[in-house]
Amino acid sequence: MMECRIVLVRPRNPLNIGAAARAMANFGFGDLALVQPYGAAWREARSAVGAEAVLAAARAVDGVAEAVADCTLVIGTSSAARRTERQPLISLPEIASRVAETEKVALLFGSEKTGLANEQLSFCRYLLRIPTELSCPSMNLAQAVAVCCYELRRQPPAARDAQQSAAGQVPMADIEALRAEWEEVLRASGYLPTPARPGDSQRLRRLLLRLNPSRRDFMALRSMIAQIAWKLRHNK
Amino acid sequence: MMECRIVLVRPRNPLNIGAAARAMANFGFGDLALVQPYGAAWREARSAVGAEAVLAAARAVDGVAEAVADCTLVIGTSSAARRTERQPLISLPEIASRVAETEKVALLFGSEKTGLANEQLSFCRYLLRIPTELSCPSMNLAQAVAVCCYELRRQPPAARDAQQSAAGQVPMADIEALRAEWEEVLRASGYLPTPARPGDSQRLRRLLLRLNPSRRDFMALRSMIAQIAWKLRHNK
Repeated sequence: MMECRIVLVRPRNPLNIGAAARAMANFGFGDLALVQPYGAAWREARSAVGAEAVLAAARAVDGVAEAVADCTLVIGTSSAARRTERQPLISLPEIASRVAETEKVALLFGSEKTGLANEQLSFCRYLLRIPTELSCPSMNLAQAVAVCCYELRRQPPAARDAQQSAAGQVPMADIEALRAEWEEVLRASGYLPTPARPGDSQRLRRLLLRLNPSRRDFMALRSMIAQIAWKLRHNK
Repeated sequence: MMECRIVLVRPRNPLNIGAAARAMANFGFGDLALVQPYGAAWREARSAVGAEAVLAAARAVDGVAEAVADCTLVIGTSSAARRTERQPLISLPEIASRVAETEKVALLFGSEKTGLANEQLSFCRYLLRIPTELSCPSMNLAQAVAVCCYELRRQPPAARDAQQSAAGQVPMADIEALRAEWEEVLRASGYLPTPARPGDSQRLRRLLLRLNPSRRDFMALRSMIAQIAWKLRHNK
């Protein structure tokens, strides 16, 4: 059974938080995380009618990494207007075909005004586009959540393919740990400059998500990197 | 090409009207009618961001009959909780298979608190159910509009069957005219009592919608009723 966490990044409007939680409850989703919600918005939202249980269980966290740490597939939502796409783009009606039954999915929604920033998007294996009109592409946050929750319940997730079997899924926290070790090795080796440049981490994170290693390959990569790191330290 | 009018019956909350209009614009729908909107709600809603064009073209009317007069298929929305279903129930993912390409559809949404009343439902050939959870069936009005608009755009309408070919579709105003004449005949004949009972019109309207006559059969029925009416008047 696929699980899905809804992650709202820096939501500003308490009505939107409450309405998003209600839409989740309507379609049977109960796992809500908020990344740095504006304080007042978050306090006010807690009283939204019809969404009490979802809001009571919701967690506020400091960053996307923490919000998605235990998820095996992170998908960012985007309006049609977005310029640079560094991830494979999927249209909402296709989502079931990209999500395996056993995956733990996080669906990221950006702030009302600005959408998702590049740093936030770098955690996403896919960008999800809701097929809105080009003349009016930008949806209300809670309505976007409603439409996505509806679609996720509309169709059962696809039968998983070999590479994405249950044992093969790697939680985002593990990907992120590998990314950090790998980046350290690249910096120690001189491949990446010191001090770090903005974007280094994002690029490496996106690379790892594109590779999409199975659990077994992930373990192999992590051993290799650990060994290289040891060697680099002891060569000094 | 199917056209679809969104009809909000007695909406109370200006935020909901504006948000419904924005969702329509997101998915390329522009035809909004409001049946007896609360005055303040309707005035306030006109300023909703992203929905200006839809709201500027929206019409406020006095009754459902007027709102759907030119439509050939009227569909009412309903929560799972509704007790008595007098119309065939369709689930939202099925809607495309029930709507012919050439039809002019009206989708009715009831007031936030009460949903659609029986009189309003009697104009509907189908009841549409959004597949929400039994534990939390009732959606926010604007989110319900968003989900329906998304589904209508998600799939093209089905190829129309023989009975529902373009020439065979009868606008609701014509059905309603036939209903009125027929009812008069039934009353003149003594089949229906005088004075009229509440519910007589609704029952006859639902009967005609179940019959779903082609344009040709509709013309035949109307001639028959006219002839009977003439005969009844001149027999006195």
